[in-house]
Amino acid sequence: MRPIQFVAKTAGVSVATVSRVLNNSPLVKESTRKKVMETIKALEYEPNSLGRELRRAETRRIMVLTPSLVFPIMADVYKGIQDVAQKNGYQVLVCASEDDHDKEEELLQMLKKKIVDGVIIVASTLSAEELDQLAKDYSIVQCSEYEQVQHAYSVSVDNEQAAFDAVSHLLSLGHRRIAMVKGGNAKSSSAAREQGYRRALESAGIEVRQEWIRESDYEYQNGYDLAVEWLQAAEHPTAIFCSSDATAIGCVNGAISLGKSVPDDVAVVGFDDTVESLMSRPPITTVRQPKYDLGRAAMEALLQSLRGEAGENKTILLPHAIVIRESTAKRSR
Amino acid sequence: MRPIQFVAKTAGVSVATVSRVLNNSPLVKESTRKKVMETIKALEYEPNSLGRELRRAETRRIMVLTPSLVFPIMADVYKGIQDVAQKNGYQVLVCASEDDHDKEEELLQMLKKKIVDGVIIVASTLSAEELDQLAKDYSIVQCSEYEQVQHAYSVSVDNEQAAFDAVSHLLSLGHRRIAMVKGGNAKSSSAAREQGYRRALESAGIEVRQEWIRESDYEYQNGYDLAVEWLQAAEHPTAIFCSSDATAIGCVNGAISLGKSVPDDVAVVGFDDTVESLMSRPPITTVRQPKYDLGRAAMEALLQSLRGEAGENKTILLPHAIVIRESTAKRSR
Repeated sequence: MRPIQFVAKTAGVSVATVSRVLNNSPLVKESTRKKVMETIKALEYEPNSLGRELRRAETRRIMVLTPSLVFPIMADVYKGIQDVAQKNGYQVLVCASEDDHDKEEELLQMLKKKIVDGVIIVASTLSAEELDQLAKDYSIVQCSEYEQVQHAYSVSVDNEQAAFDAVSHLLSLGHRRIAMVKGGNAKSSSAAREQGYRRALESAGIEVRQEWIRESDYEYQNGYDLAVEWLQAAEHPTAIFCSSDATAIGCVNGAISLGKSVPDDVAVVGFDDTVESLMSRPPITTVRQPKYDLGRAAMEALLQSLRGEAGENKTILLPHAIVIRESTAKRSR
Repeated sequence: MRPIQFVAKTAGVSVATVSRVLNNSPLVKESTRKKVMETIKALEYEPNSLGRELRRAETRRIMVLTPSLVFPIMADVYKGIQDVAQKNGYQVLVCASEDDHDKEEELLQMLKKKIVDGVIIVASTLSAEELDQLAKDYSIVQCSEYEQVQHAYSVSVDNEQAAFDAVSHLLSLGHRRIAMVKGGNAKSSSAAREQGYRRALESAGIEVRQEWIRESDYEYQNGYDLAVEWLQAAEHPTAIFCSSDATAIGCVNGAISLGKSVPDDVAVVGFDDTVESLMSRPPITTVRQPKYDLGRAAMEALLQSLRGEAGENKTILLPHAIVIRESTAKRSR
């Protein structure tokens, strides 16, 4: 055990707290500061040399843990992380877990092995408890998907409100039969977006129909198949709200394959505002996530945590926007 | 300097060669083996403990160095690498250099610092000399883009032949005015593909027109703008061959924005066979790279090199295929 870990353990506080005390952070309670300093004295350590050890032990590398390199918003989030990291002399390693819990745990061992100083988690299978435990000892920031925990930062959009706004846009165009292609059930964003969809429908006095809420893997083919299935039914939706742009483009092309027109026969809304949403014909109305800014804010929060300056408010929500393009229009029939 | 490095330096061979000798690789010349064993003896090292040191020094991590996380074939190449790595107990770290030479050099320091055992380079700005020098001391595999060097493996498709085949497909449909959107000039694949394009035209007795060969960054908007520019000219191409699928979809949508029809007014061919090529309407005829297999072969070559079994033939070419979809058809006017 490194001296700083020994101090933390003996004083019953986190390594981050000891680090904060040694960095004279104004965020530490006086009683905590006193306890830590007394522990250091009792263990006969020299505060200055502990501080030096702390800096020497820095690797100046951080890890981005993502389920997949093709996670829809990953590339832009990464750019934001990378720009802030570079400006502050940090290298960024990206590791894909493929949503495998064992692989995640193995990768997170790099914290203990001092290969990286901290981790930005884009999404993981870790439970809130596991995350909180990890974040007691290490600097952890959740970016995009997140669990509400005490010790880790999270940076995201308000997924519930974003979905509410997207569905409200469709309602304002006169649509009342609105289906939803949601993401995987394990993702926190998926539950939040479904809530927003439900709230929007209920606010308009429209009954939620379970058969018009379906799960997807965010992929193109999923959207294609669901649009074909829904639009062939006797009573079909006049609008579809999707949890990704690729799924939305799938819905557009699935509808067109049946000889339907978008947006006249069916309106389609995507999520994320990726470059693909512009490649589609018609281009997709979508929910813009501030992807680059999410990455930047996540790296800034991580640096703050690494410096031992973690504040009390650890949940950072950035604004979204509804980008209206040609895949949505006033309901015509 | 670690003992094994000291032995390598004294014997005037690479660390990989010492490793091969200690692993009893059949690939080492008898004279080299003799020289290394005599050096070990003269320096009073114990071959068995050197071998143990070699294994202990393993990190069981490798790095993938890529210009960008959105490098078109990256996601699938990564999956191939990851699957072989996992089966062999290796972790994969992905680092994006953004084609910045300084950043590449910094990232490659992770070899010297023993953070990773070897590197797969998807593309880099390193010169052939720099690469060869690095590959003398470390296990390096180039995957996709490559320089011809003595010590590093390379895994790729035959880009010259692939471009020749793609343009031959257009020629076979009766097209004689064929433009090319190539990739960045710094990429080795870009030069090879342009050669293939030129060879196909020249074989058909068609003069190459410099104004119909243009550089791009592989992006959608590039293709869109070039198609609009070319198709508005008095004499315009009837077919466009692109170095990426995103650029090809740009050409399709640029043509359609002018009221032209694809493939009737202009045929379009892409490169890579990414998922986007199916999202386009019409779906894109493209050159399929065996992306997953490229990654798998690269990781297998890296493992071979790490085991000190590197063979003489270090250039591995995997087969490509022309995937014919609806963006190409017989020239009609």
